[in-house]
Amino acid sequence: MTDRLRIAVLGASGYTGADLVRLALTHPRVEIAALVANAKAGQSMQAIWPHFAPYPGLPTLVKADDVDWSGVDAVFGCLPHATSAELLSKIDGPRIIDLSADFRLKDAATYAQWYGGAHPAPDLLPGAVYGLTEFARRQLPGAGIIACPGCYPTAVLLALLPLLEARAIAPDRITVNALSGVSGAGRSLKEANLFPEVAEAVHPYGIGQHRHMPEMEQELALRAGRPVTISFTPHLVPMNRGELVTCIVELTASLADARAALEARYADEPFVHLLPEGVAPATRMVRGSNRSVINIFADRIPGRAIVIAAIDNLVKGSSGQAVQNMNLAFGLPETMGLEAAPLFP
Amino acid sequence: MTDRLRIAVLGASGYTGADLVRLALTHPRVEIAALVANAKAGQSMQAIWPHFAPYPGLPTLVKADDVDWSGVDAVFGCLPHATSAELLSKIDGPRIIDLSADFRLKDAATYAQWYGGAHPAPDLLPGAVYGLTEFARRQLPGAGIIACPGCYPTAVLLALLPLLEARAIAPDRITVNALSGVSGAGRSLKEANLFPEVAEAVHPYGIGQHRHMPEMEQELALRAGRPVTISFTPHLVPMNRGELVTCIVELTASLADARAALEARYADEPFVHLLPEGVAPATRMVRGSNRSVINIFADRIPGRAIVIAAIDNLVKGSSGQAVQNMNLAFGLPETMGLEAAPLFP
Amino acid sequence: MTDRLRIAVLGASGYTGADLVRLALTHPRVEIAALVANAKAGQSMQAIWPHFAPYPGLPTLVKADDVDWSGVDAVFGCLPHATSAELLSKIDGPRIIDLSADFRLKDAATYAQWYGGAHPAPDLLPGAVYGLTEFARRQLPGAGIIACPGCYPTAVLLALLPLLEARAIAPDRITVNALSGVSGAGRSLKEANLFPEVAEAVHPYGIGQHRHMPEMEQELALRAGRPVTISFTPHLVPMNRGELVTCIVELTASLADARAALEARYADEPFVHLLPEGVAPATRMVRGSNRSVINIFADRIPGRAIVIAAIDNLVKGSSGQAVQNMNLAFGLPETMGLEAAPLFP
Amino acid sequence: MTDRLRIAVLGASGYTGADLVRLALTHPRVEIAALVANAKAGQSMQAIWPHFAPYPGLPTLVKADDVDWSGVDAVFGCLPHATSAELLSKIDGPRIIDLSADFRLKDAATYAQWYGGAHPAPDLLPGAVYGLTEFARRQLPGAGIIACPGCYPTAVLLALLPLLEARAIAPDRITVNALSGVSGAGRSLKEANLFPEVAEAVHPYGIGQHRHMPEMEQELALRAGRPVTISFTPHLVPMNRGELVTCIVELTASLADARAALEARYADEPFVHLLPEGVAPATRMVRGSNRSVINIFADRIPGRAIVIAAIDNLVKGSSGQAVQNMNLAFGLPETMGLEAAPLFP
Repeated sequence: MTDRLRIAVLGASGYTGADLVRLALTHPRVEIAALVANAKAGQSMQAIWPHFAPYPGLPTLVKADDVDWSGVDAVFGCLPHATSAELLSKIDGPRIIDLSADFRLKDAATYAQWYGGAHPAPDLLPGAVYGLTEFARRQLPGAGIIACPGCYPTAVLLALLPLLEARAIAPDRITVNALSGVSGAGRSLKEANLFPEVAEAVHPYGIGQHRHMPEMEQELALRAGRPVTISFTPHLVPMNRGELVTCIVELTASLADARAALEARYADEPFVHLLPEGVAPATRMVRGSNRSVINIFADRIPGRAIVIAAIDNLVKGSSGQAVQNMNLAFGLPETMGLEAAPLFP
Repeated sequence: MTDRLRIAVLGASGYTGADLVRLALTHPRVEIAALVANAKAGQSMQAIWPHFAPYPGLPTLVKADDVDWSGVDAVFGCLPHATSAELLSKIDGPRIIDLSADFRLKDAATYAQWYGGAHPAPDLLPGAVYGLTEFARRQLPGAGIIACPGCYPTAVLLALLPLLEARAIAPDRITVNALSGVSGAGRSLKEANLFPEVAEAVHPYGIGQHRHMPEMEQELALRAGRPVTISFTPHLVPMNRGELVTCIVELTASLADARAALEARYADEPFVHLLPEGVAPATRMVRGSNRSVINIFADRIPGRAIVIAAIDNLVKGSSGQAVQNMNLAFGLPETMGLEAAPLFP
Repeated sequence: MTDRLRIAVLGASGYTGADLVRLALTHPRVEIAALVANAKAGQSMQAIWPHFAPYPGLPTLVKADDVDWSGVDAVFGCLPHATSAELLSKIDGPRIIDLSADFRLKDAATYAQWYGGAHPAPDLLPGAVYGLTEFARRQLPGAGIIACPGCYPTAVLLALLPLLEARAIAPDRITVNALSGVSGAGRSLKEANLFPEVAEAVHPYGIGQHRHMPEMEQELALRAGRPVTISFTPHLVPMNRGELVTCIVELTASLADARAALEARYADEPFVHLLPEGVAPATRMVRGSNRSVINIFADRIPGRAIVIAAIDNLVKGSSGQAVQNMNLAFGLPETMGLEAAPLFP
Repeated sequence: MTDRLRIAVLGASGYTGADLVRLALTHPRVEIAALVANAKAGQSMQAIWPHFAPYPGLPTLVKADDVDWSGVDAVFGCLPHATSAELLSKIDGPRIIDLSADFRLKDAATYAQWYGGAHPAPDLLPGAVYGLTEFARRQLPGAGIIACPGCYPTAVLLALLPLLEARAIAPDRITVNALSGVSGAGRSLKEANLFPEVAEAVHPYGIGQHRHMPEMEQELALRAGRPVTISFTPHLVPMNRGELVTCIVELTASLADARAALEARYADEPFVHLLPEGVAPATRMVRGSNRSVINIFADRIPGRAIVIAAIDNLVKGSSGQAVQNMNLAFGLPETMGLEAAPLFP
């Protein structure tokens, strides 16, 4: 490793790719070696991204085949699923930090069922580390492939894993209602994401069939020691960034003990914050930052609790967590390049 | 009753009052007799409302004491709770259509517990009709006091009452996650409702203690034949109008039977629409109109269903339903003055 | 003419087409005979429009070739330019009310220059009436083709024509800065109109080359009696509907006389309102309605005035004005079906 | 000076104060010594600001009288005008960086005329440096009082000063149309700034009487060598942050020469970027950053040009420029703590 990590971003023409570039620009130990976008190869980042207008020095977009991978330390996969694994499995040399869904599920059959096709590189699945950073610190340093969690799973697992680990909640009847900003839908051309279709409006989507469900169930089951089936209903909210999950759970300990479990688990975490009692998590608390805020409340129905977490879907829910994972994988301070405070208003 | 109903609006300086005036302006059988706003008496509606700029002919705001109630057929209460009952209980003559919370709860003790003070006119409670129009048609014609439901209860009860009545769902563990536009918070001066505080953001509020809970429980219990305790978590969404409730319920019949119960109940309703299977309700389907859309989905957790409803909180959730109630109370066609189609985009 | 006008809408899958259908639904003398959208023929309006979910009775979309035009009294063209004239020129029978740019410019050469191709039906241009309703009332009754003005020209001409006619302003150095909601960009799939691209942001576009310029110049020149060249800079604002134009003009009369000219011209107009002195026009004053608000202010630079107008770009700027023109063309009351008051908040 | 500059923020309960704290949190050479907010003294920053929820270590708010000024190197005034000068004039020791209007105007009489009262400390005016950083570098190092420009003047002056200095435009008939996000209105409780009043809407305000006019005229006149009167019409746009100014100017050189003047002036500036020919400035290019983007276009009216600039009103238009000034005043690298790339989407 030289003084600076040389990174490549596959899919620099999408929102997660762009947010990774944004973070890389001010990371003191990162150098952008290549920006890849097959369909837009030859264009400048300024031509396709308004916020890079002041950065004429950014590398021009290239095709994946035109990258000299020998000079790259880490490659970030910011591509749609299937495309990602297919492309990444052919790259030799750099460590892989994938932001797609391709290396998250351990079971290729589950992948095939939810993602509509056979996995492009099933032999790579066993070696991939599920990179929910706060729960993966021991595996990250040596990892060849890091699968960054989906945005919803990041928020839900941060909220629930400590409670499951402490046996403070039951793994049954976990019910999650989730709210996401529109950037979570990506930059692809869909009528449904035009401004007039979603502004001044709200609606649920993917009811009972969102692809983040098996991912959450896999990680919850791992801690519960048995299969878990959850209820999950995401809604689209007219904002650019931000994600908030409201989880209804059955307590198996007192609310105070549950709260204590969260407190103990996150006391020393730089990016996860248990809020003071009674304070409601809000996406504005974390906008534009890698931080996450969590709190737990009594439900009006006895024996249940409401656990709520908020993140910025593009940062902690995507590119920020990827950089956090990179830092740990390469022995850098975990918070490096991720110190920016939330942007409010 | 003359050719035109002469109405008065108490609280014409608030959002619900203004939306009532907006609807009254084009109602063919309504005449605005008085607009009351004690704190702003003497001002014109144009001075305090931008959208009435083109209506210089609207009556000037007056104090309640200055109204000649003998010439008023119906008075709409668009005031905060407590103030509403106190003022309305002193008015003799016109029928009362109240949009505050004051006449919704049948039990004065419950009112005192949730609204922080003794009820100003408890003797009026037994006679008040709970005006969820679709379930109150028989009582409305003769009603002296009509209590219009809260916005959240309107959406939740439209979604769940037919299912409870058909014994298709259990009255236990009903879990509601709700989303509301900011107009629901009223026009009062709170830092929390300034544009930069809520735009590009989302957060829950009133967790476990929202005042619409006892109201929903009262009406659900009435149909269940026994007490009901629900879970309810509302969230504030950066939009002006619109409300969407996502209800997780335990099925006691098949999903198909549950769906059939909704279909049968709403087949002939002018303002409540069961959507085709698989279509997700959205606030944009009803924006600016008195309509409501509903649908039911299988939950991933076996034995449960997800019932979702959307309304415009200021119309079907407030002023529109009040006009609908007025129409029935005075023998007019139910849809009169409420025909406007939803505004999209 | 039968009791109800039978109308057809070409381009019912676009925003202006949909807003025309919305207005037609409650127009007491209109019947929707056919909804045309070649690319989406065979689909229901519910399938492509959320707000028509409660209207299962709307006609299914058909191809233009499949319409029996003999049963149609008026056809509304809500198609892109060129396509509109090409299709409409082949339709025999119904009167044509076109919302595209195709029949607005009197000079086919100017059309070719600005719209990038020869006019598809130049022989129809002389007979077309430029349908800025308030200035076209005498020509509308017998018109075979009515060209509805563009949204920006509607606002600018309503603001300036009375001043030019009264010789209160000079036709030189007219400078217009304009703001529009995103629905003005149409429903076509462009990355630039995705929610995350335009929310929480503002930018100018089409600087010095917007196609509404020659149209405004044509109509201003007509009143000035000589060629007029204007400056026009439109900006995209993160809102669905609404348009506001801020016009800097050189006074040739006193400000009071200029104001008097506007007052006299619009005193009896049902949809155009001169605001009280000092009140700033705002799009929220007219949202969802066919109304327009105007005011005039002294500029800090002596001898100049600032004239500001606001409309809803989809109503008075498009479909509402089209209905207003239809009413006059067919001898109906001008305001019929357009009475809805503005929606605020 | 110790290793870290110890700063105090007067008015830490307002948006500009909070954004200054946000920037200070990650500035490597700044330590927050005191946060002052007389009305909220005793409260924590977490209690009043959502985005500081993850920063429990921030100092508690105190009254100005309770600060030990001897330990403070620089005090930032983030208070309303008049209050600011009154308070700051009593503080002895630290250098003053004021973000209010109080030290911007050189002429106390002009101040009195526009700000409705005598200046609280007129004797301090001559010594104050007008801190438009790019044009004040020589005066900043020794400055005792730095008056940070208003947000609109920052954008307008960055756009026009190089053109005036190069004699490429005339100082006559400068016409500015400006657009601002709602955070520019501050956090004070005004009905006009409630979410439902401004969302999905746009309107002009302060027409012909905005207080930033004399400030712009003062600085323009300084370069023009004679008095300048400008036209300025600001509009409120439904977004949190961002400001865009569209300036119509009369050219006294060719457009190419004017462009060359901007290019030469800003070639080496870290925060001001002349965009490539034809690219329209947009607020999304600079959101959340200290950067500014500028471009110049031919107007359709011969002999005129349109100069457009965009900034984030809270950063380059306020707190960011204040930090930039602090850096220069204290001999630190100009960009320190201000490197964050723009946040998009």
